[in-house]
Amino acid sequence: MSSSLDGQWFTEVFNSHGSAFSLKVTEKLLDVQSPYQHLEVYATETFGNLMVLDGCVMLTDRDNFLYHEMIAHPALFTHADPRHVVIIGGGDCGTLKEVLRHPGVEKVTQIDIDQEVTKAAERFFPALVEANDDPRAELLFADGVKWVDDTPDESIDVLIIDSTDPVGPAEGLFKTDFLKRCYRILKPGGVMVQQSESPLYHSGSIIRELRRDMQEAGFDSVATLPFPQPVYPSGWWSVTLAGKNADVGAFREQDAASSEMPLDYYTPEAHRGALALPPFMRRAFVE
Amino acid sequence: MSSSLDGQWFTEVFNSHGSAFSLKVTEKLLDVQSPYQHLEVYATETFGNLMVLDGCVMLTDRDNFLYHEMIAHPALFTHADPRHVVIIGGGDCGTLKEVLRHPGVEKVTQIDIDQEVTKAAERFFPALVEANDDPRAELLFADGVKWVDDTPDESIDVLIIDSTDPVGPAEGLFKTDFLKRCYRILKPGGVMVQQSESPLYHSGSIIRELRRDMQEAGFDSVATLPFPQPVYPSGWWSVTLAGKNADVGAFREQDAASSEMPLDYYTPEAHRGALALPPFMRRAFVE
Repeated sequence: MSSSLDGQWFTEVFNSHGSAFSLKVTEKLLDVQSPYQHLEVYATETFGNLMVLDGCVMLTDRDNFLYHEMIAHPALFTHADPRHVVIIGGGDCGTLKEVLRHPGVEKVTQIDIDQEVTKAAERFFPALVEANDDPRAELLFADGVKWVDDTPDESIDVLIIDSTDPVGPAEGLFKTDFLKRCYRILKPGGVMVQQSESPLYHSGSIIRELRRDMQEAGFDSVATLPFPQPVYPSGWWSVTLAGKNADVGAFREQDAASSEMPLDYYTPEAHRGALALPPFMRRAFVE
Repeated sequence: MSSSLDGQWFTEVFNSHGSAFSLKVTEKLLDVQSPYQHLEVYATETFGNLMVLDGCVMLTDRDNFLYHEMIAHPALFTHADPRHVVIIGGGDCGTLKEVLRHPGVEKVTQIDIDQEVTKAAERFFPALVEANDDPRAELLFADGVKWVDDTPDESIDVLIIDSTDPVGPAEGLFKTDFLKRCYRILKPGGVMVQQSESPLYHSGSIIRELRRDMQEAGFDSVATLPFPQPVYPSGWWSVTLAGKNADVGAFREQDAASSEMPLDYYTPEAHRGALALPPFMRRAFVE
């Protein structure tokens, strides 16, 4: 997957879309082969530290706020009263930190299969793990699919699938069968959200299929929200929400507007704007 | 400015921000040194044709709709009744095409210094020039700064600065002095809009300075609108609007909602969402 401009660059090549993105690096800080994936951390010249899994850019200090705010706050402000939140994946703990900003949340359980990711975050991304000591947070290192199967019916309010791409260890998280299992453990009124790749590259493929799979799994409403994400393929990314007896096309706008969270990207206006969808995406979903 | 992954890639390196973006190319279609700049056109594997000026990506078939819709429609739907529109730069004619979708527009004058850009668009980007025969369109090849100086006071409704980056031939278009000249030729109620670089890279520098310069030039309201643009540095771009006795923080939402233009990105909801600005940008503008 990786190539380089010269020795000073980390490059991720997206062969299926004929594009590549590179960051100038100054030092390799970590190179670990975990039982699940190849984990690297680099110091970059202008993006702070960079985490890479199996050759794919996961996050940088500079722009991870976009992804983490957009996978957490739209789902949390869509649910009427989110108390028990579950994160599958999310080992870097950035999503956990955003979820814990919601004062009504009583418990957040994070299940990542690979403890090496969290260890790397603790060493090289201290800002992401700063909420880990919150007594409401529970960090488990286990197989998320199995964890879901062992969880009682209708026991979760919000389920966040903060996974890598649908290849490698996260492949099972993109199947209809898994979505049905997620549906089962959500309470009525529950919301799930999954990262859903690039609006430019995947509207007519991965995103459309995920939306259909969510509907087949029983969810009665689905909404895809695009947002900028410079270090991901095409610089443009999305999350897709699904509601169990809940309308994910609406959210607690007043609560979002009056919250005093110190955010960098999310606003209720951005949430509403994202819900409207660019016309080319709307067309891709029904074609 | 250019480097390459191997012979099959076109790479633009953004040295000041330690990042690079690459597209896989299959053929070089044009290589011209005009009196003003170095113009290249490539066929890419997945983005259609690619235009490059002085080593910087200008546009591709696949994603130019984002930039062209966002530099045209927010300004046109902000002006109360845009009849005479002027485009400085814009030689690829994509902005012109979007402006001409507005039925109330009576005349669009486009002034680009470099006729080679328009010739290349005619040969390699036929979709962009398909409105050029509209009797309301006037294409001039001349110095835009001089053209502005020769234009009577208060004679233009909307002025669009569709330029390259603030280096090379477009440098003069980013100076306070030029903004004052633009202010002079706008009618009261007039709106100008300028492409204003990357929200991630330039909020605290180029964008902030442009906003201040616009205010110093006499404009009484200013609004920056971010939008995704995969092939530009950081994959995220912006336009900045300024009003002469006009509030660019509001627009004709009802007209935008009821228009039946066949657009791919712009919606009134996206316009409203962009106007709200991410909090990190708001902070960068006042710091």
